[in-house]
Amino acid sequence: MHRAAHLEDFDRLTGLLARMSRHAVTAVRNATAVLFDGDGQAAAAVTADRARIGDLYRQIEDLIPTLLARQQPVASDLRLVMAAVRMNADMQRMGALAGHIAARGLGRQPAVPPQARRLVAAMAETAAALAEKSSIVLSTRDAIAAMQLALDDDVTDALQRELFALLTGDWHEGTPAAVDLAMVGRFYERFADHAVSVGRQVAYLVTGLMITSEP
Amino acid sequence: MHRAAHLEDFDRLTGLLARMSRHAVTAVRNATAVLFDGDGQAAAAVTADRARIGDLYRQIEDLIPTLLARQQPVASDLRLVMAAVRMNADMQRMGALAGHIAARGLGRQPAVPPQARRLVAAMAETAAALAEKSSIVLSTRDAIAAMQLALDDDVTDALQRELFALLTGDWHEGTPAAVDLAMVGRFYERFADHAVSVGRQVAYLVTGLMITSEP
Repeated sequence: MHRAAHLEDFDRLTGLLARMSRHAVTAVRNATAVLFDGDGQAAAAVTADRARIGDLYRQIEDLIPTLLARQQPVASDLRLVMAAVRMNADMQRMGALAGHIAARGLGRQPAVPPQARRLVAAMAETAAALAEKSSIVLSTRDAIAAMQLALDDDVTDALQRELFALLTGDWHEGTPAAVDLAMVGRFYERFADHAVSVGRQVAYLVTGLMITSEP
Repeated sequence: MHRAAHLEDFDRLTGLLARMSRHAVTAVRNATAVLFDGDGQAAAAVTADRARIGDLYRQIEDLIPTLLARQQPVASDLRLVMAAVRMNADMQRMGALAGHIAARGLGRQPAVPPQARRLVAAMAETAAALAEKSSIVLSTRDAIAAMQLALDDDVTDALQRELFALLTGDWHEGTPAAVDLAMVGRFYERFADHAVSVGRQVAYLVTGLMITSEP
């Protein structure tokens, strides 16, 4: 195998990951539109994004053994492969979580009663913003931005705690809505965590260091 | 680096993974004891298991670059490394989820009101049984058992659906308890999914095939 063909495969891998990350961003944005407005067109878009994410996931999984089968892979190649395995799993989960959020919006409407709109909208916006950052650092490989993202793992935690306090406190929109919103809050929080994890992988890729604020 | 030293490192990796899997089993069993009985001793045990899982996680993460830095790793070595990266992440999540379950048990008691005891106990038992299977296949490398486990990813789904129907239906234990139990149900379901994922990795390790019932 020529070194040129080898580099081509690595370029292909980073290209697949970058595309996947863009689908994760649109998936969560569309999922939020479904959740807040029961928007059927947005629901179809989430389904399409998830299908593309699934395709890309499988392409990446198929590419990895090929990359590892190279003779004498260098350390930075192996780091990319390890990071790719982790990011692929993270972004697949992001797609699945966006799907779960959208599904709640297709159930009872309004899925987000007035009492919870501000908080859920803030969680949704935070999750989408983190996904966008993860998509950007994946393309730019900006070490500082990636490290900042890697340390952003608590921005949704405070919002989620506030949401739970609301749902289990003076809540007057009924138990079913509370149960649904608790799940939605959890989905956004997990989505955000996976976006942060992508940032952590990019930082690892660029610096060789695994950054974590807490074990 | 001699081949013997090399094999020693791989043995060390499989040993660390096996130990981690046993801590995941006891963590979920103890978390269930905390949830059902507010058992303080069990809560301390969960904390201890999580600390051990965290240690093992870091040891595995540290070992992986060493293994990859070997000259001319063979295909089965690389497969073990890839599977180890994934299993390490799965089992760390299993520990975290057990911690979340235990935390709910240390809040309001009874955390599981009579109306939900049967279902939550069934979810807990299913999750623990899957974790045990994952721990066993990790040690035995039994291809058939690993493949069976890899396809077991829907056993908790039906129970979780049943739990949600209860919480959002004729539920008379109040909204806070419903919100907590919805989360607990989700934690057991995710815990079980990660145990199944470990089975999938073992199957991949032994057969070279990635088994999945659905993307």
